[in-house]
Amino acid sequence: MFFVEGEKSVLEVLNSDFLIEKLFVTESFEQKHLSQLKTFSGIIEQVTQNQLEQLGQFQSNDSALAVVKMKSNRAFSPEAGEWILALDEVRDPGNLGTIVRIADWYGIKRLVFSPQTAEFYNPKVIQATMGSFTRVEFFYEDLGKVFDRWKLPVYGAFLDGKNIHSLQEIRPGVILMGNESNGISPESSQWVTEKVTIPGFGQAESLNVAIATAIICDNFKRLSN
Amino acid sequence: MFFVEGEKSVLEVLNSDFLIEKLFVTESFEQKHLSQLKTFSGIIEQVTQNQLEQLGQFQSNDSALAVVKMKSNRAFSPEAGEWILALDEVRDPGNLGTIVRIADWYGIKRLVFSPQTAEFYNPKVIQATMGSFTRVEFFYEDLGKVFDRWKLPVYGAFLDGKNIHSLQEIRPGVILMGNESNGISPESSQWVTEKVTIPGFGQAESLNVAIATAIICDNFKRLSN
Repeated sequence: MFFVEGEKSVLEVLNSDFLIEKLFVTESFEQKHLSQLKTFSGIIEQVTQNQLEQLGQFQSNDSALAVVKMKSNRAFSPEAGEWILALDEVRDPGNLGTIVRIADWYGIKRLVFSPQTAEFYNPKVIQATMGSFTRVEFFYEDLGKVFDRWKLPVYGAFLDGKNIHSLQEIRPGVILMGNESNGISPESSQWVTEKVTIPGFGQAESLNVAIATAIICDNFKRLSN
Repeated sequence: MFFVEGEKSVLEVLNSDFLIEKLFVTESFEQKHLSQLKTFSGIIEQVTQNQLEQLGQFQSNDSALAVVKMKSNRAFSPEAGEWILALDEVRDPGNLGTIVRIADWYGIKRLVFSPQTAEFYNPKVIQATMGSFTRVEFFYEDLGKVFDRWKLPVYGAFLDGKNIHSLQEIRPGVILMGNESNGISPESSQWVTEKVTIPGFGQAESLNVAIATAIICDNFKRLSN
């Protein structure tokens, strides 16, 4: 089980294929979203804002909290032409959540995470996705095994790769992003078919991993379209 | 005065034109960076890691903390061909710091902030810049007054502007980013000469403001070069 908190996220999870075990709502949330709640067949319990905040992690929550069943860790196989995002030890929950939101923005629906990547169902991850957690599919597995199975191009983000502004052609496959401090691990690096780099024009040494993911997705989508 | 904490940031501020009032260092930091500390003429006080952590905001700091003089809020005038980043009520310190780091990556050295934008010298901002705070110039002022004075093109980020992937030509000027929830204010909107939008390919409703800033800077730098 995991918690989904706040108006927007609870409405998103009500509209998703996640199984909601129980729903805690304030009176005002219930009245505001009566029609959506009618289609929900599970248990609804009315509570006060104070009770909601004691139940969950949010400092302030005057709407709702859903107790939701986690999905099982089931591997998928990419379809032809599909882009997949792979994360190698992205440990910060805020970064993971932001990356899921970026993937959803760029139409990347499936992700694969190394076992040391942050826990997807962490409340900070769920919050940072801004509802996008309901629209992606993912699993955790040793990335080497996954890449070996898929035999797809793997574009890895490094500081010494090919300038993404100069790429002429890309073939759909995997975008691989590494750990906040250490980047892509040596083990995963072996599977990278093309190292790519975001060109810098100033003096900052690096970019945050979520920022870098967004820029690479944007460049790849521009090239693919 | 403001605090700069941690090894990397303190080394950056030692190499900058900021005036350091006092430096608190652990023995190990002092020994590791002896040559750099020799050129510093101010007061150095040796403390324990425990004392450092009590002084500052960092939960863990085994290196150093600098007490630094804030710069005065002095307006600048853009040079010909210069890109300026303007922020209209970006209120989250983490977002502001991340945006400063992005500006530094893309060689944008000067920024202007609306009065309601987060305080630059907030420890969370300083930390999120990862040292880039030493390499940018900025001031706070009513943005309308600033844009009126500068008479430059103002590219504003909206959800209904021109697709940045389709822009053919841009003239150096101002990139304007708005508040986390409400975007660019109606007052600032009046000064926007071109509305621009990051194309979405999925279902996320929006992007975080720091993410959006990075993608726009990347697209504009690609076009300018």
